[in-house]
Amino acid sequence: MLFHEKLRTSKRDEMIDITRQAAALIARSGIRDGIAIVYCPHTTAGIAINENADPDVKHDVLLRLDEVYPWTHPEYRHAEGNTASHLKAITTGTSQTVVVADGRPLLGRWQGIYFCEFDGPREREYYVKVMAD
Amino acid sequence: MLFHEKLRTSKRDEMIDITRQAAALIARSGIRDGIAIVYCPHTTAGIAINENADPDVKHDVLLRLDEVYPWTHPEYRHAEGNTASHLKAITTGTSQTVVVADGRPLLGRWQGIYFCEFDGPREREYYVKVMAD
Amino acid sequence: MLFHEKLRTSKRDEMIDITRQAAALIARSGIRDGIAIVYCPHTTAGIAINENADPDVKHDVLLRLDEVYPWTHPEYRHAEGNTASHLKAITTGTSQTVVVADGRPLLGRWQGIYFCEFDGPREREYYVKVMAD
Repeated sequence: MLFHEKLRTSKRDEMIDITRQAAALIARSGIRDGIAIVYCPHTTAGIAINENADPDVKHDVLLRLDEVYPWTHPEYRHAEGNTASHLKAITTGTSQTVVVADGRPLLGRWQGIYFCEFDGPREREYYVKVMAD
Repeated sequence: MLFHEKLRTSKRDEMIDITRQAAALIARSGIRDGIAIVYCPHTTAGIAINENADPDVKHDVLLRLDEVYPWTHPEYRHAEGNTASHLKAITTGTSQTVVVADGRPLLGRWQGIYFCEFDGPREREYYVKVMAD
Repeated sequence: MLFHEKLRTSKRDEMIDITRQAAALIARSGIRDGIAIVYCPHTTAGIAINENADPDVKHDVLLRLDEVYPWTHPEYRHAEGNTASHLKAITTGTSQTVVVADGRPLLGRWQGIYFCEFDGPREREYYVKVMAD
């Protein structure tokens, strides 16, 4: 079963927790056991699974990714100027696959599913595809 | 359904658009709804989903990845000398999963599927596995 | 079919080959053709597919990841102090999907599946989910 969600981001770089929405869609699918793919159809945003407890983790992750993949670079050619966004999206990944067990995403205690904006703020979307065993 | 494809790369670092081939194999599978996994069986090449419009994005992505994971390093031990290729492949990922809807990969408007060569030129291969709902 | 495995890591940064265990679980599932998801429920460890031949590759990969994502950083805020572990886990990925063909993971000749510890030593766990065609 396939679900299509929209969201609005508010910063250039931002990790938005979509765990509750993803879990609600998995529940709505009625599928008890299988997998779910959370998929980002953008090339300057991605999906990551990471810590849901301390918000400072998001701060630090975005800070360092921005140093490793800086916004400006003397040899970048891409006219749109957002090469860094593409590199960050490739690093986090375009999608994440989670196990569905007993109708719920089988996440670790500290895991959340994040929509990672790397070129916002924008209107964005993502898909949740649930596959039964 | 499982498909096995071959390709020849022509540079050390290269992103080759395989979207059309992947879409053709998904169509050939006859599966209307499900997922497809594009899988790279190499450890010095990977699969990424990224922008299909401006070729300068590929240039910039490969340029910066080569700075973050440089070819030579005073402390590298791997005798084959291609540690950087392994690091780049880990960063892009060995495979990508896409949603199949109505017999087609559900990609975003600007998304393409890329075979990422990081130690070419070589004869390479990849798999496309299509799973039905 | 879903399997739950435990392991003990022995270093802060470590890549542990779990290919044999994953293959044994896939065989035990009785599923001949499909996919398997190897999933890490931690946020400071990940799963990667990489070279299984020269152990120096692991050395070099961990060395360079530690430079790109250093343990200490003047602007890190995360009180637990392991931001680097989160960044490394995001880079390798929380899970890997492999094709199952004829009851076995369809890996390339040089590919192994690795549990990547980035904040050890610890008691850790992972899941292997096998989905039939």
